[in-house]
Amino acid sequence: MSKTRVEVLRVLLPAPAGQPEQERVLDAVAVEEPLEIRVAGPDGAASRVAVTMRTPGHDDELAVGFLRGEGLIEARDDLAAEGEVTQRAAADPDQVVTVRLARRFDTSLLQRNFYATSSCGVCGKAALDFIEVAAAPLAPGPVVAAATLLGLPAALRLAQATFASTGGLHATGRFDVDGDLLCAREDVGRHNAMDKVIGRALLDDALPLATSVLVVSGRASFELVQKAAVAGAPILCAVSAPSSLAVRLAERVGLTLVGFLRDGRFNIYSHPARIAL
Amino acid sequence: MSKTRVEVLRVLLPAPAGQPEQERVLDAVAVEEPLEIRVAGPDGAASRVAVTMRTPGHDDELAVGFLRGEGLIEARDDLAAEGEVTQRAAADPDQVVTVRLARRFDTSLLQRNFYATSSCGVCGKAALDFIEVAAAPLAPGPVVAAATLLGLPAALRLAQATFASTGGLHATGRFDVDGDLLCAREDVGRHNAMDKVIGRALLDDALPLATSVLVVSGRASFELVQKAAVAGAPILCAVSAPSSLAVRLAERVGLTLVGFLRDGRFNIYSHPARIAL
Repeated sequence: MSKTRVEVLRVLLPAPAGQPEQERVLDAVAVEEPLEIRVAGPDGAASRVAVTMRTPGHDDELAVGFLRGEGLIEARDDLAAEGEVTQRAAADPDQVVTVRLARRFDTSLLQRNFYATSSCGVCGKAALDFIEVAAAPLAPGPVVAAATLLGLPAALRLAQATFASTGGLHATGRFDVDGDLLCAREDVGRHNAMDKVIGRALLDDALPLATSVLVVSGRASFELVQKAAVAGAPILCAVSAPSSLAVRLAERVGLTLVGFLRDGRFNIYSHPARIAL
Repeated sequence: MSKTRVEVLRVLLPAPAGQPEQERVLDAVAVEEPLEIRVAGPDGAASRVAVTMRTPGHDDELAVGFLRGEGLIEARDDLAAEGEVTQRAAADPDQVVTVRLARRFDTSLLQRNFYATSSCGVCGKAALDFIEVAAAPLAPGPVVAAATLLGLPAALRLAQATFASTGGLHATGRFDVDGDLLCAREDVGRHNAMDKVIGRALLDDALPLATSVLVVSGRASFELVQKAAVAGAPILCAVSAPSSLAVRLAERVGLTLVGFLRDGRFNIYSHPARIAL
């Protein structure tokens, strides 16, 4: 459930002729709820990894994508081969998801990773150092036509069922180099939307995303470039502005960063060779 | 420094007559850099509290506001009475700030708080429980005229030096009930912009914000309602959409939550008695 209805007092000043200044209406809002992510080894013993405020839906992808972004798992075969990949807590099925791993989980890794990364903006002093270890520099290619890029935001919006009615959700889309949409996910948290897309790819054994173009509906932060790079995506496009650190990281890891992709134009901030003009 | 210039390849398709399809330009981007927040007791021994990705500027306010939001300090007199309130690391003055406390710091509090709160979306399972402890229910009043509210977003934009040129910064403004701007801060992180405003108020010994209206330039998440409520602000207005949990929390703590405040209209999601229509 990605949206819900709440009772709202809608105010319009000055009210147009024949309309009330205020009226009680039911309005859609994007759902935000906490999700606790746990991991469990083959013996079933679970460790808590994180709690994120997310929009419910595709929680398994979110959990798996989050773990991938933190460097705790790499590929599909790090997950349990038999049975469901994720389990729900019986007591709290909407708020706790457990990812079943193929191997015993080293909890000391957890400490270290949470110290060293920045999934949320708060937590990671050594984030810049970490990324150079975790993300192999991206290989050259593929090449995407500029005209193809221009069509991607509209395709992503078309795939977003919720945004139009709530105004409250970020989206990430994964496209191939011909501009065909492979996966679109949305969430109140922009990092979650990208984790879901990357988690889906991991579950489909489609990582690294070496021939994909990722598109985000808002701004490009350090964190989103980090997640894209760690997933091996060579091109990240944002509808809005990038930050200085996003640009610097993209430059460093060999990622093509595009910003302000809208209205027939865009800016290339790094590694323009992948865009055919 | 809240913005910097980077070299960009600007692409425009199709190019208007007489203009190039692409050109190299210098473009402004919002600065995003890590800041480590530490606290030190009277003996000078420092503990690391968090690292946040932030836009440099007003770092002392950010650090103090963050600590307030986490429940680690309450008021001005929790800070060292003599000398500077914050110190910079000699080796890393732009990346580390230490808040000097009046009393010895109990590091076990740190563990508990970071377990129990959600400053960043990731970390806080018990966030909803915590808020009920930390934020006393807000008292009734004050009352603000609807026409006053309508003017606040423009006043906030006017105060934002950076947004127009980078498109990359969130803002929080603190207004009095007559609509006069008391403080405006901006940041790549929406939570940071609000922490800066609250930190400024703490440094000015102006907490709780019982007669203030807070305005945020974007969406209203659970986290922003939480920060406003913990600071005692009775009215929070967002230019864009709130989330479901933001509405629920506002309802619960007695905060008036306004969304979509723009173009002569707004929605009231909770406790409308503070808005005079």
